[in-house]
Amino acid sequence: MDYQKYLVLGGRGFLGSHITEALLARGYDVRILDRPAPVGAKFPGAPTSGRLEVVEGDFTNPTDIRSAVEGCDVCIHAVTTTLPKTSNDNIEFDILTNLVGTVKLLENASKSGMKRMVFLSSGGTIYGAPRTYDIAETHPTEPISSYGITKLAIEKYLQLFESLSGLQFISLRISNPYGPRQRIDGAQGAVAVFLGAALQGKPISIWGTGSIVRDYVHVCDVVHAVQAALVYEGEHRIFNIGSGRGHSLLDVVSAVEGATGIQLQKEFLPSRVFDVQRNVLDITRAGRELGWTPKVSFEDGIRDMALWLADELRFRR
Amino acid sequence: MDYQKYLVLGGRGFLGSHITEALLARGYDVRILDRPAPVGAKFPGAPTSGRLEVVEGDFTNPTDIRSAVEGCDVCIHAVTTTLPKTSNDNIEFDILTNLVGTVKLLENASKSGMKRMVFLSSGGTIYGAPRTYDIAETHPTEPISSYGITKLAIEKYLQLFESLSGLQFISLRISNPYGPRQRIDGAQGAVAVFLGAALQGKPISIWGTGSIVRDYVHVCDVVHAVQAALVYEGEHRIFNIGSGRGHSLLDVVSAVEGATGIQLQKEFLPSRVFDVQRNVLDITRAGRELGWTPKVSFEDGIRDMALWLADELRFRR
Repeated sequence: MDYQKYLVLGGRGFLGSHITEALLARGYDVRILDRPAPVGAKFPGAPTSGRLEVVEGDFTNPTDIRSAVEGCDVCIHAVTTTLPKTSNDNIEFDILTNLVGTVKLLENASKSGMKRMVFLSSGGTIYGAPRTYDIAETHPTEPISSYGITKLAIEKYLQLFESLSGLQFISLRISNPYGPRQRIDGAQGAVAVFLGAALQGKPISIWGTGSIVRDYVHVCDVVHAVQAALVYEGEHRIFNIGSGRGHSLLDVVSAVEGATGIQLQKEFLPSRVFDVQRNVLDITRAGRELGWTPKVSFEDGIRDMALWLADELRFRR
Repeated sequence: MDYQKYLVLGGRGFLGSHITEALLARGYDVRILDRPAPVGAKFPGAPTSGRLEVVEGDFTNPTDIRSAVEGCDVCIHAVTTTLPKTSNDNIEFDILTNLVGTVKLLENASKSGMKRMVFLSSGGTIYGAPRTYDIAETHPTEPISSYGITKLAIEKYLQLFESLSGLQFISLRISNPYGPRQRIDGAQGAVAVFLGAALQGKPISIWGTGSIVRDYVHVCDVVHAVQAALVYEGEHRIFNIGSGRGHSLLDVVSAVEGATGIQLQKEFLPSRVFDVQRNVLDITRAGRELGWTPKVSFEDGIRDMALWLADELRFRR
């Protein structure tokens, strides 16, 4: 990587903070843009040799974006303003913040001479109901949430700007990421929610019978995929990033119980219409083109996260 | 068709006015929403047995849209606020007007219990650079203009709303439509511009050598496709609507010269980067599913339009 300065949008977030740390650890200069942090919020503090510049601002504010891109020649876009399950409740907000926000970013980045943008897209929502057992990048894209539609439209604008101004893009369609720093309040997935419930002695709700299968990928594997995307020189632009393996909700329950030694109290609720039965990514292309494969096994990943969360909850009390 | 009342958005426009006339001629009640007409503008005046209600308002005004959909159980969406070649100049405007405008329409239509929406999409821009000789509906969608991207995103939202609220949609990806009432000022395609130039004794500009091939479809064929889409009960939602035949710009020049008996003065300019060499639609699906095939030959269509335009220009003087 011969970039001068890295911009990480959403650099205080779950994925963004891990990416930022990894870049700093390699000695790169990184600017992050994120919203003002709540009092007491921790910031990436691993040993670093690169320099970190923190800019507080809002992704949807064109003025903040204009100053953020200035002087950076590569950007990792790890911001999202909505959640899959609630994005349909206010579609206009989803479009105005995620889509228009990204278009403004692309316009400013093109003008400032930025060379590459790595976008964290959504392998879990962009395809819609799967027509094949595993889902490759060539699968039809028919999202059943506005969240997935705006991610798809962003990919189309990335492609447009590459052809207009030469700003290269890579879109990583990430499955269900999990790991340290993930929110346990229900916004970011089953692993975090179940682990949080186990360690806090709370019951969990399972929609349906628990047979729903998802592809869970550890944040460390996501970070390595981003690093591979930053140096990739081939012709592909879109990559599935997942574990390539399916685990049911009941598998997650077992793994959480195994890692914590705590028996979860389960409440089964009627299944939700928008939950597809199975969503597992075919990650062949990323293996072949990026030379990337996931390294963290499901069981190890859950154990790792359980240790972090136990510490974290102790600290919070 | 057993709908109570039809709503045509953009009912005073090139395509919308022909669709409105055809519905009125069949005895249907039609409401149109369009912007206030300029002084002296003609309105569809063919013999009708249905009742016409004209509502003046703006597609991008949610209040106007809310009243427009009220009491209509089917809608033909023939509004666009941007042009392919200039949409990249103000992408935010394209998104805010076409995309957010259509989302507001869908929200209101779903709430009011509307049953079906027929959307006039763009076969000329939604696919991007063709990877096959003719382009089927299954071809990748990689638009090289914001115009094409917003049309694609609209299709995704149509699909989302069908799954959320049962509002059925049909999207007609129309190639390059031409015919009476088309604007000759350059906004709506080569046939109109060349005919206008011939009849007004003006020179024409041709980017490149004139070998660029497009699929020109007569407005009467588009109207028939809309009528077929209104009663279609099969499982497909997206149809290419074109002639299925390719004609080069030099073919258009010959046909215009043949129809008018006037020799065009041609100025050849450097080719434009965003013009793909060939864009011809595969219309097999529409033939099989809608029972629709184009009837107007290229030569007949140009002659028909030349007669209309000669009359029209006489009237304007």
